[in-house]
Amino acid sequence: MLAVQRAARVATLGLRRANVAPALGRALSQSATAGKPIECDAAIAWEPKKEYWKDALTIEKVIVDPPGPGEVRVKITHAALCHTDAFTLEGSDPEGLFPAVLGHEAAGIVESVGEGVTTVKPGDKVIPCYQAECFEHDQHSDHCPRCRGYRVGKTNLCGKIRPYTGAGVMKSDGKPRFRSARTGEALYHYMGVSAFSQYTVLHEESCAKIRDDAPLETMNLLGCGLATGWGAVQNTAKVEPESICAIFGMGTVGLAVIEACKRAGAKQIIGVDLDDNKKSLAEEFGVTDFVNPTKFGDRPIQEVLVEMTGGGVDYSFDCTGNVKVMRSALEACHIGWGKSVVIGVAGAGQEISTRPFQLVTGRVWMGTAFGGFKSRSEVPKLVDQCMAGELKVDPYITHQVNLSNINRAFELMHNGESLRTVIYMDNDATNSA
Amino acid sequence: MLAVQRAARVATLGLRRANVAPALGRALSQSATAGKPIECDAAIAWEPKKEYWKDALTIEKVIVDPPGPGEVRVKITHAALCHTDAFTLEGSDPEGLFPAVLGHEAAGIVESVGEGVTTVKPGDKVIPCYQAECFEHDQHSDHCPRCRGYRVGKTNLCGKIRPYTGAGVMKSDGKPRFRSARTGEALYHYMGVSAFSQYTVLHEESCAKIRDDAPLETMNLLGCGLATGWGAVQNTAKVEPESICAIFGMGTVGLAVIEACKRAGAKQIIGVDLDDNKKSLAEEFGVTDFVNPTKFGDRPIQEVLVEMTGGGVDYSFDCTGNVKVMRSALEACHIGWGKSVVIGVAGAGQEISTRPFQLVTGRVWMGTAFGGFKSRSEVPKLVDQCMAGELKVDPYITHQVNLSNINRAFELMHNGESLRTVIYMDNDATNSA
Repeated sequence: MLAVQRAARVATLGLRRANVAPALGRALSQSATAGKPIECDAAIAWEPKKEYWKDALTIEKVIVDPPGPGEVRVKITHAALCHTDAFTLEGSDPEGLFPAVLGHEAAGIVESVGEGVTTVKPGDKVIPCYQAECFEHDQHSDHCPRCRGYRVGKTNLCGKIRPYTGAGVMKSDGKPRFRSARTGEALYHYMGVSAFSQYTVLHEESCAKIRDDAPLETMNLLGCGLATGWGAVQNTAKVEPESICAIFGMGTVGLAVIEACKRAGAKQIIGVDLDDNKKSLAEEFGVTDFVNPTKFGDRPIQEVLVEMTGGGVDYSFDCTGNVKVMRSALEACHIGWGKSVVIGVAGAGQEISTRPFQLVTGRVWMGTAFGGFKSRSEVPKLVDQCMAGELKVDPYITHQVNLSNINRAFELMHNGESLRTVIYMDNDATNSA
Repeated sequence: MLAVQRAARVATLGLRRANVAPALGRALSQSATAGKPIECDAAIAWEPKKEYWKDALTIEKVIVDPPGPGEVRVKITHAALCHTDAFTLEGSDPEGLFPAVLGHEAAGIVESVGEGVTTVKPGDKVIPCYQAECFEHDQHSDHCPRCRGYRVGKTNLCGKIRPYTGAGVMKSDGKPRFRSARTGEALYHYMGVSAFSQYTVLHEESCAKIRDDAPLETMNLLGCGLATGWGAVQNTAKVEPESICAIFGMGTVGLAVIEACKRAGAKQIIGVDLDDNKKSLAEEFGVTDFVNPTKFGDRPIQEVLVEMTGGGVDYSFDCTGNVKVMRSALEACHIGWGKSVVIGVAGAGQEISTRPFQLVTGRVWMGTAFGGFKSRSEVPKLVDQCMAGELKVDPYITHQVNLSNINRAFELMHNGESLRTVIYMDNDATNSA
């Protein structure tokens, strides 16, 4: 179903496309709205809704305050959604704060910058990155011990602004920049991005500046899912030619993992999913085998995989967020060297477990966030690779909707009908900036 | 206590030392006993004994058959014991077979070799290695897929003879080479070594030939504990200069880990143990801090370590076999890069668990067996390093006993009074070979 739909056309679902690129792409010394609050449309999550796919967000006017010191106000042109938005919206995220403006996979254009911002300027195209990067490697700053000293290069998880993005506020004053135009109530930021608003305010550390000719209607996917899947393979697992790989879960991230495994020269790529309808799609992306665990009775899927690969896989990837699947993925690995990468996000309080013998005999259990990419440094390079045709984004976009139809995007995701639905933010139609 | 005892002297516990070296060190073209069964003393484990420290083994005569094709009969001169012997003896090892000749950390001299053996000859000094190495990297053998093809170098866990050593028998005919002289009953081999007998039969793949001038009364420790601890640091975790390390459990393996962390240039080495008496000993081996988890009330020790290190350790090592400790060791690691290595062996059916978020945010959970060393290739190099004074063995030997007192060695271990007790096998006194 999905594969056919994707191959045939992108479903546009009544999309009205504003021709935003020329108007927004111009270099602005400073926009007319700089320094002033902007009123615009946003999709607000007022409270957690277990049934996140049933009109959970409301489209309302919000006031977006000007950027403070070290902050950047960005006009979001396109956003997508991933399961993490749903995870928070349904109330499973222990860090989830409400009311909030959700959304963390997007692209846009800088509208104005706050005091001291040096790395982006009005008119720059940017991808907001929920994983910030502080660029303070060489400084004797006490802000970000993770990026300094002998530990430089060990992680992409810059910690400088994490306490603030985790708390839904900005670092300079500990407050959010959003409030409801209707009630005046403050609205929390989400993952340091809050893409489901026509304008948002980011920390400078979250703004990956990309090239001026980048198509924002596709590049917005690099803000999360694709970078995560690709990076899990190349940065975290470091898949080698001739490898045998197993990928659990054939959503966008799983398919991106498959694509990257193929590019890395894996000789066998096994897709694992409960839904046989995913088979043809998975094959288009590169699986050599498709396994449906429900077809083996009570037999654990890890046993099936160990047998079919003559000892186990070299690399496995959980793209489901299900802790039982994470265990299967680890135990499907070959003794001695198999590495299993957890990518999916599990519900609050859930735990993974296994016999320690699995590790003592050489399997490695690891995980990845944003695919190990350093966001501001490496996202622009991913854009270059996409525009050179080395990496593909289009195949992941199955639907396009306007901001006013954003709840439909959640419904499509919940029903397993979509990969990525790109939300056109329609901001030229409603704003002067 | 222990530290004082160790520093002052090695407790010899009524040891009668046979001056075995000159008589055994001579080059033998083939010994007088070659091709014939040998009757000698061994410590037999007739059945599992929960209280393994209470005279669980019986010293009896055994018949050791000549080596079959690809096999080597070795006169064991010195053995030590480690917790894995106790683990099997008490019945916790799901693979444990009885009756058996236990022991897997030893040194000895080749008495005779079976057909086709090319890498050792009678008179050679050897360290029996429970982890075999097949040397078939370049061959198109179907014996050992783990050591061939693109996977070469990925693991030390050669699988060629594992099905046989796991079953307590020899590969050539699927039978053991031991039987009781008293009852005629066959006795299983243990971990492919069975060191608690004056003679044993090994697969050639298990014999690490070491230099002729190696002192067997100390080098026997390289058969398990020391190699495991050192290798966990240098091969598995790959500890770097300036690192912060935490080691859980101050037994022989834990101390060897400490020693190796110090050698690797770690700037902070935190020893964790429930017993304050271990503090001075741990300091001698190199800890910069000693933490007793019982001193912090209900506070999880991982929280304490994260706080005292400003975010967590770079590397942690479980040397206890306790699954709760394994979790603490992982969760004491720094977000983004902390690696935790499981070394201890847990009881049957026990599981480790954690929240997957620990891995998604960059911690790595791994394990090691025999410290990642390829046994036949690398143990001889360790012997060279010991004899050059680069690595030290003596500090780990706290006691020496005769074979007839082997049960005392288990008692010392159980009481936490010893590190390694070397068992002098007294074989010159009872054998002519």
